[in-house]
Amino acid sequence: MFMRNTFVAALALVAVLASPLAAAEETYTIRLAETWGPNSGLLGQSPRNMAAMAEKMSDGRLKFRIDSSNKHKAPFGIFDLVRNGQYDMGHTASYYYKGTIPNAMYFTTIPFGMIAPEMYAWFYHDDGMALMQKVYEPFGLLSFPGGNTSNQMGGWFRKEINSLDDLKGLKMRTPGFAGEVMSELGVAVTNLPPGELYTSLERGTIDAVEWVGPALDLQMGFHQIAKYYYSGWQEPNAEVQFLINQKTWDKLPADLQEILRVSMRTAAYDMYIQSTHESGAAWANMKKEYPEVTHKVFPPEVIGALRDTTNRLLNEFAEKDELANEIITSQREYLQQVRPWTNISDKAYLNSVADQ
Amino acid sequence: MFMRNTFVAALALVAVLASPLAAAEETYTIRLAETWGPNSGLLGQSPRNMAAMAEKMSDGRLKFRIDSSNKHKAPFGIFDLVRNGQYDMGHTASYYYKGTIPNAMYFTTIPFGMIAPEMYAWFYHDDGMALMQKVYEPFGLLSFPGGNTSNQMGGWFRKEINSLDDLKGLKMRTPGFAGEVMSELGVAVTNLPPGELYTSLERGTIDAVEWVGPALDLQMGFHQIAKYYYSGWQEPNAEVQFLINQKTWDKLPADLQEILRVSMRTAAYDMYIQSTHESGAAWANMKKEYPEVTHKVFPPEVIGALRDTTNRLLNEFAEKDELANEIITSQREYLQQVRPWTNISDKAYLNSVADQ
Repeated sequence: MFMRNTFVAALALVAVLASPLAAAEETYTIRLAETWGPNSGLLGQSPRNMAAMAEKMSDGRLKFRIDSSNKHKAPFGIFDLVRNGQYDMGHTASYYYKGTIPNAMYFTTIPFGMIAPEMYAWFYHDDGMALMQKVYEPFGLLSFPGGNTSNQMGGWFRKEINSLDDLKGLKMRTPGFAGEVMSELGVAVTNLPPGELYTSLERGTIDAVEWVGPALDLQMGFHQIAKYYYSGWQEPNAEVQFLINQKTWDKLPADLQEILRVSMRTAAYDMYIQSTHESGAAWANMKKEYPEVTHKVFPPEVIGALRDTTNRLLNEFAEKDELANEIITSQREYLQQVRPWTNISDKAYLNSVADQ
Repeated sequence: MFMRNTFVAALALVAVLASPLAAAEETYTIRLAETWGPNSGLLGQSPRNMAAMAEKMSDGRLKFRIDSSNKHKAPFGIFDLVRNGQYDMGHTASYYYKGTIPNAMYFTTIPFGMIAPEMYAWFYHDDGMALMQKVYEPFGLLSFPGGNTSNQMGGWFRKEINSLDDLKGLKMRTPGFAGEVMSELGVAVTNLPPGELYTSLERGTIDAVEWVGPALDLQMGFHQIAKYYYSGWQEPNAEVQFLINQKTWDKLPADLQEILRVSMRTAAYDMYIQSTHESGAAWANMKKEYPEVTHKVFPPEVIGALRDTTNRLLNEFAEKDELANEIITSQREYLQQVRPWTNISDKAYLNSVADQ
C-alpha cells in the first residue's frame, strides 16, 4: 500500500507554496578537481555520474563544479589541492601520491593482488575502508572508492616474450610499482609523456608499452603497430578514488552526506561495469580491424619471477613501516580467504565453458 | 572551494525554523513484500540496505515497511501482490514467474550465460533494461536489478560424476530451467521443500542437491554429509529483482524517484560484493571443519551435453515467441562480445597465478 501522509502533506504543501523563502533551502556548491583531462572517457565520466546523481537526489541542494587537469594544471597534485582546501573534492588515484604518502598506493592496486569484486569485498566487508581512513586521516581527508578500470592488460609488445631473457634490455613504458618490478628483471623502464608513446613505439624507441586495457588503449592506437597483447599481472584491478576535505564533509547535513556517500559508491561500481562493457566492445573492434593482433600470456617462468620480485619488494615495504605491514598483511590474508571461492566459481566456470 | 549560498540560506533558515508546517514535507510510506523469510541472509539484507539508504538520503520523506514471506504468505506471489497494488514494491526473482510471464526468467540467469559483471554490463550498457521493461510494462510494473548471488555452484553430490552415465537415474533436487535440462539427461529431478533436503540427502532419498553457493549453503549443512562440491553451469550469475508498481513510481517527485533508483542500484551491486565476501568466508569455513570436502568440476562430456541441451531448449523458446527470441538473441550476442574480454583479463590472470 502506498500511503501518503495526506493530512501533514496538505498542510505542508500550502505552507511551502505560499512562502518563496521556505522553498529555498541551503545549497552547497562543491568544487572537484580531477586528475584527468577533458574527454578522458570512463575515468572522467565517473565523477560526472556521481555529481549528476547527487544533484538530482538532493533536488539541487548539492551542486558540483568539476575542473579537469587543463584547468587546475596539477593532474598529480589533487591530494594537495584537496588537503589545502583549494578544492573540496578530488577524483584521482591513491598510487599517484606514493612519494608523499607511500601507504596510499595499496588502495589502488597491488601486483598479483585481488580482482575487482574481491577488492570491493575487502573494502566494504573486511579492513579496507578502515585502513584507508587510517592513512588519510592525518591529512584531514576522507577517501572513498571512485571507480574500477577492471583487470589491466600487461601491455603491447612488438616481439613475443618467451623467457626471462627476452625481458633483458627490453625498452618498455610501464610506470609505478610495476616499473620497479620490471627494472629488477632487467627491463629498461622508460617514462615518456602519453603524447609521445605511439610514435616511440612505432619508431622502436621503445619495444613495449603498458597503458590500461582495451577501453582506454583503443584510442591510443597501439594495436595498429604492436601485434602481441599480453594479459596482466601488475594491476588485477585498479580502483581510482574520491578524496574529500574533512571540513567540507563536516559542514554537510546528514542527508546530504548520505547522498554524497551513496553517489560515490554507485559511481565507483558503475565505472567497473562501464569498463567491462567498453573493454569488451573495444577488444572486439581491435580484433576485427587488425586481425593479426594476438592475445598472449607470459610464460610461467616470467610470471614466477615477477611474482617473486613483487613479494620481495612488498616484504621490504612491510619491514620498514608498521602501517604498510598492517595493510599488506590484511590484503594478503583476505586474498587467501576469497580467492579459493573465485577459483571454484568464476574461474572454474570460465574454464569449463572455454574448453567447449 | 566549498561555497554556501549564504544569503539565501540565512533567509531560508529563519523561515523554515519559524514555521513548523514548512519543516513537514510530504512523506511516502512504501510497502515492500519480499520472497524471502526472516533471517534469510544476504537476500533479505538487500531490500533493507536499499531502504536504509533511501530513508537517510530523503531525510525520512521515504519510509519503508518490509514484509517477509511469513507475513504475506505468498513467497512466489510477489509479482501479483505488486501488480494488484497490495504492495508498492517487491524483492524477488524474475524466474519464479515463468508460469505467468515466461519471458521474465531470462533476467535472472540463463545456464551457460553471463557472469555477474557481464550481466550488469548487458543491463546497463546494452539492451537489458529496455528488454526487461518491455516484458514488465504490460503489467503496470517496473523492474530493476536487485542483487546478485554471484556464480552459483552446481551442487553437493555424494558420488563423483565422471561421465554422462553417472547422471542417469541420479536423484537430485535442482529446480527450474536447470532441472528441465538435467531431466533431459536422465536425472530424476525431485522438488522437495527446503526443510526436508538435509534429511533426504542424509538418508539417500536424494543423491545430490543444488542450492546456491557457500554463503547460503553453509547453514543448510550439506557439506557435512556430501563430499563433492561441483562448480556450476546453471546460474553463472543470478540477479534478483526489485519490482515497483508504476502508479507508485509516478506519484513520487523526481528527487525521490532518483533516490529510489540509486538506492536500488547500489543495493544490487552491494549484494554481489557481500555474496563474494560471504562465499569466500563460508567456503574457507567448510574446508576447515570438513577437510574431506572436495571441489570438483564436471567432465567435458557432461558440460558439453548440458550445454547442447540448454541451447536446444533455448532455441525452442525462441522459435515459439518473438520477444523470447529478441531477449535470447540479445544475450547471446552480448556474451559473444564481452566474454573474449573476460577471458583475456580475469580468466587469464586467475589461471596464470593459480599455476604458481
